[in-house]
Amino acid sequence: MAKDSIKIGLIGLGTIGGGVARILHEKAGFITRQLGVPLILAKVADLDESRKQSLPDPGVFTTDANSIFDDPDIDIVIELIGGEKPARDFMERALQSGKHVVTANKEVLSKHGPELFAIASENKVGLFYEASVGGGIPLIAPLKQNLQVNNISAIHTIINGTTNYILTRMEKEGLEFSTVLKDAQALGYAEADPTSDIEGYDAAYKIAILATIVFHTDVRPEDVYKEGISKIASQDFSYARELGYAIKLLAITRKEGDSVQARVHPVFIPKDMLLAKVDGVFNAVQIEGDLTGRVILYGRGAGSEPTANVVVSDAIHIAQSIALGASLNPELPLDQPKIIKPIDEIETRYYLRMTIIDQAGVLARITKILGDLSISISSAIQKETDSKSQTAEIVIMTHPSKEQAIQQAIGEMGKLEAVREISNFIRVEDFEE
Amino acid sequence: MAKDSIKIGLIGLGTIGGGVARILHEKAGFITRQLGVPLILAKVADLDESRKQSLPDPGVFTTDANSIFDDPDIDIVIELIGGEKPARDFMERALQSGKHVVTANKEVLSKHGPELFAIASENKVGLFYEASVGGGIPLIAPLKQNLQVNNISAIHTIINGTTNYILTRMEKEGLEFSTVLKDAQALGYAEADPTSDIEGYDAAYKIAILATIVFHTDVRPEDVYKEGISKIASQDFSYARELGYAIKLLAITRKEGDSVQARVHPVFIPKDMLLAKVDGVFNAVQIEGDLTGRVILYGRGAGSEPTANVVVSDAIHIAQSIALGASLNPELPLDQPKIIKPIDEIETRYYLRMTIIDQAGVLARITKILGDLSISISSAIQKETDSKSQTAEIVIMTHPSKEQAIQQAIGEMGKLEAVREISNFIRVEDFEE
Repeated sequence: MAKDSIKIGLIGLGTIGGGVARILHEKAGFITRQLGVPLILAKVADLDESRKQSLPDPGVFTTDANSIFDDPDIDIVIELIGGEKPARDFMERALQSGKHVVTANKEVLSKHGPELFAIASENKVGLFYEASVGGGIPLIAPLKQNLQVNNISAIHTIINGTTNYILTRMEKEGLEFSTVLKDAQALGYAEADPTSDIEGYDAAYKIAILATIVFHTDVRPEDVYKEGISKIASQDFSYARELGYAIKLLAITRKEGDSVQARVHPVFIPKDMLLAKVDGVFNAVQIEGDLTGRVILYGRGAGSEPTANVVVSDAIHIAQSIALGASLNPELPLDQPKIIKPIDEIETRYYLRMTIIDQAGVLARITKILGDLSISISSAIQKETDSKSQTAEIVIMTHPSKEQAIQQAIGEMGKLEAVREISNFIRVEDFEE
Repeated sequence: MAKDSIKIGLIGLGTIGGGVARILHEKAGFITRQLGVPLILAKVADLDESRKQSLPDPGVFTTDANSIFDDPDIDIVIELIGGEKPARDFMERALQSGKHVVTANKEVLSKHGPELFAIASENKVGLFYEASVGGGIPLIAPLKQNLQVNNISAIHTIINGTTNYILTRMEKEGLEFSTVLKDAQALGYAEADPTSDIEGYDAAYKIAILATIVFHTDVRPEDVYKEGISKIASQDFSYARELGYAIKLLAITRKEGDSVQARVHPVFIPKDMLLAKVDGVFNAVQIEGDLTGRVILYGRGAGSEPTANVVVSDAIHIAQSIALGASLNPELPLDQPKIIKPIDEIETRYYLRMTIIDQAGVLARITKILGDLSISISSAIQKETDSKSQTAEIVIMTHPSKEQAIQQAIGEMGKLEAVREISNFIRVEDFEE
């Protein structure tokens, strides 16, 4: 029973939704050529009726999403309203109505993915989400297809464009965080409430999705350790440069034995690594596999057109399987035990920056605390005294140490009278070549 | 009619073939879990019987490839003997026997791809070739899937690991080409006869395959302009550094209006670009799309394991469609007109290095030749005179100029008595940010 067209219902006509409608219209000839039948945008639902006029055919607009679920002719639902509610319910209703779903919704996928995949499977339809992580970068499909035979040991990602833009400008222009944040907000690179980006929530959603795919285990946002970039100061960049590092907000997932690490925090990375050179709003995903070695995928992680491109590509992929009368590949079962390694138990190197009162014996007391906790120092920098306040800034780089020991050391050093302030501590990520 | 297993016949048990056999054996559990049925290496053909012992099950070995084509139980043939003959005929026979084919053979694909795809299509089977370009980098599938809605305007690639290894060592260690080549041969990074790599043939095969995919037109190796790296000297790296560039052997394909450029030659690229930082045997593919903007895919372009990984992934992809009873997507028709832009007609900037006799008026005569051909100079460097030979080395960077004019200028300058030698000229590639 060959169909003479494949029909899409789109929910959410914001910037990405508008891009999807435009691409489906402008590239209709190419898509029809590829599929053999046209891929038609049959209905578009949005609560904001003023958006209707942006459509090539405003006649398909509706304010009632139900009319999409209830329309038996619609094969594929594209969900682009974002946020958890009502997006999750919309996706569930679409799947239960026997419609394939394409989404860019990282929050719903990371919080409710396994439940939604089960519903998709029961209803013999697909749930595709390439656009949820890494915008225009081909990522989910390669991880599920080309890289799947690999045992992947670790993924290191620069996956949030807003924070990478801010860190890049801090590094290149010597500016402070608050200054660049205001600028980024004025330019539209950061939202009015930037919490989700700068505190690492957005990156945590994304790394939870990637960890789930590559480690075949159920990693949710609450399993991801999160630390944002607001504590990073211009001095940290000066010291990093002096020591041969860049500072990036990384989202990391890593397998060690049976346990999975999933964490988002600022990281010192050697400045000659490609990841250190990913600047501005660009994203990059570095994958270590036992067969492939290191693979890096780089591109724009956000923006209407890159994201809309992969949404439409997902829809074409589904439409091809409909046109060919084929089933879609099911998601891999999440059959590996879920053992999340707490941040306390990770072991890495650390950068510590603190202000001390410049008097004899202070450094000795600090190094004793570290030594007693088996934390050994690989290098230390003491900058000239501020003679007015009689304080000095010191920076310590440690050898690999337990996070728990470092946290305890910071607590104890903070109690020393001679320590004015523990200004920052940043994890140092080492990479095998 | 559900099958209880899917069977592979492998032709060619060299390093990649050995890797494929090992992966199919070691990851059998994972693959079965994903497919629902086992993927079995049923026959392995190689003329060298001594290779038999490397197989997990030597009983499947044969020296007679015919027994694979004639075996009705074999679903998928993996061709890994390399070279044009008899690989092309083997692939044709497999396809005509109704078997899907997976290959890493860039030479056959680039020379005979369109004919083989037609045979595959007639026989309703697939021909998969992810491993033919970029080794372990996910590349062909993303270009055909995630990036397909894009209008791709240009692809710039570092696609030959041997030459990138040689250039990287020349740059970092100040060595000459011949020294590093010998070293690379000793280390197994270059072949005893290195012509295919260092003269750009290997890269030409690969860029012809990529150009064919992204521009939907029939680009063959003979359409690709080729120039190798043997003329590059350590001085060129010194000048490049001074001018803010790296030197890489790039394979480039670009669309301008209806015409397609396809060319392999050394290039000056700005040293702050990510491509400039791709070192050693690594490969990178930079794709410019109208929707995605710049995407870069990076990884190991060769090696037994990375390549074997994608060969097996292709086989799994085919096996999934067999298990699901689905047809495979056909190749896109090559329905765009084939208009190859000759190298003479490209316009770019140029770096020229020459040795002149150090006497009054020589530079004036050189600049007159350039000026008469409408080539304008953006910068010039004259290094101190070699007082013994009374010669000086000069380097000229031009503004964008026609290749034809530059070639004519080089011819005319070479005839000047005061020009001892035109030592090198290298194209400069500019990139929009």
